Amino acid sequence: MIFFDKLEKSIKKNNSLLCIGLDGDLARIPKHLLSAPYPLFEFNRAIIDDTSDLVCCYKPQIAYYSAAGAKGLQALKQTIEYIHDRYTSIPVLLDAKRGDIGSTAEKYTEEVFDQLHADAVTVNPYLGFDSVEPFLKRADKGIVILCRTSNPGASDFQDLIVEGKPLYQHVAKRIVDWHQKYQNCLMVVGATWPEQLKDIREIAKDMFFLVPGVGAQGGDLKVTLTNGLRDDKSGLIISSSRGIIYAGNGKDFAKKARDETQRLKNQINTFRK
Amino acid sequence: MIFFDKLEKSIKKNNSLLCIGLDGDLARIPKHLLSAPYPLFEFNRAIIDDTSDLVCCYKPQIAYYSAAGAKGLQALKQTIEYIHDRYTSIPVLLDAKRGDIGSTAEKYTEEVFDQLHADAVTVNPYLGFDSVEPFLKRADKGIVILCRTSNPGASDFQDLIVEGKPLYQHVAKRIVDWHQKYQNCLMVVGATWPEQLKDIREIAKDMFFLVPGVGAQGGDLKVTLTNGLRDDKSGLIISSSRGIIYAGNGKDFAKKARDETQRLKNQINTFRK
Repeated sequence: MIFFDKLEKSIKKNNSLLCIGLDGDLARIPKHLLSAPYPLFEFNRAIIDDTSDLVCCYKPQIAYYSAAGAKGLQALKQTIEYIHDRYTSIPVLLDAKRGDIGSTAEKYTEEVFDQLHADAVTVNPYLGFDSVEPFLKRADKGIVILCRTSNPGASDFQDLIVEGKPLYQHVAKRIVDWHQKYQNCLMVVGATWPEQLKDIREIAKDMFFLVPGVGAQGGDLKVTLTNGLRDDKSGLIISSSRGIIYAGNGKDFAKKARDETQRLKNQINTFRK
Repeated sequence: MIFFDKLEKSIKKNNSLLCIGLDGDLARIPKHLLSAPYPLFEFNRAIIDDTSDLVCCYKPQIAYYSAAGAKGLQALKQTIEYIHDRYTSIPVLLDAKRGDIGSTAEKYTEEVFDQLHADAVTVNPYLGFDSVEPFLKRADKGIVILCRTSNPGASDFQDLIVEGKPLYQHVAKRIVDWHQKYQNCLMVVGATWPEQLKDIREIAKDMFFLVPGVGAQGGDLKVTLTNGLRDDKSGLIISSSRGIIYAGNGKDFAKKARDETQRLKNQINTFRK
């Protein structure tokens, strides 16, 4: 199924714009899971089973798995397969921020789509069009391109002024161009920068934004939604990782994650009315 | 050993600024290797054994291995271990172009340094300082930051004019700042852009540049060296991948690769006199 069709259906079915970032860290997940053959998979499975009716997508960050070596990457693969098998309506967005010259970018598409079977992937635009093109050509996938990121250092280069406007607005305009041609783009805009989010919504009125930064990073949810929602009260994927997955740390961690997911989902929906 | 010490010794020992990009692709390597348990490792081992006296470093590109799944990544790990074990004086620069918010960047340092044991890694600067900082803090490693990349689309964003100068020059200046503080930075400047290389050498007179693009991508070697060499006739790591590793395609592929490596090394040294 085309990524956007899957995403729209998932948003409607669960009435949710919330995405859980599956960024499990062996040093932080509940201790009782560490004896399992694939602790990161067990951690994810419990959280997925307890939240699958509340989210519009799941977003594993590949670095957390590759940092754990071959077993970590196997846990990532198991996690994605598990979602595809059990919760067929929920898309998996792999956060990998890949970006390289065309011939290498082609190989990255094989990594994320053919090996790991993600429905969508994040991509870094610094190398320009031909570095993004191999991703864009995967018409059934969602290509989520960095625009204004959520971290403190985002301003170092993304805010430099080009022809009177910050670089991230030029990037946003190029992403809009690419989306008009390929119809499969989204962009990353951090919740920690609500003014920039507003500017980018002006540039890309109809697009979907992946918005990290509402949890541990401190982004304000109300301002994010006010500035970022489209006229149809959709168009945002609000992602929270640590705030949800580490809501608890005992045997009931998945229930605690569910409670926090429910709370955040409801809070988001309050502002969508 | 500190990366730069290892690199300087290797350059001196082999009298070479040449780096081989180990970007083996299962679809392109000689057919007789495909029956081996780890074809990409066998391919690399043969090339390494036949070129270890001619190069200053090896640069595997991780995408080629992750595109081949768990076995591909195992072949990458084997390759790096093999170089460390057999050719202890030659550093391994992993081309991965990672870049993410600080907490995630930390995980990427674990991937490339603790899991894969690279001596140096390429990093994308688009997310700014805090995305690079976890890498910079690994004082014994080389952090190779993208400045002006070799691909055609490099100009899309890297050439946008900020305060009268292209973005890549601002990036170059920030990399110089980071290097002054951390003493472990290099930068990527494509051989396909000799004028930009000249400008960047003006900004970073003493730094090392990783220069891809002289082989299949068509960069001019003479102009690259004229514009890029430091006053001491060093300061460049000239990387060629496809032009060397696919010089032959039969049982003698490693010898063909050696011949091409020898030719390119000698050609580079002609311009260093």
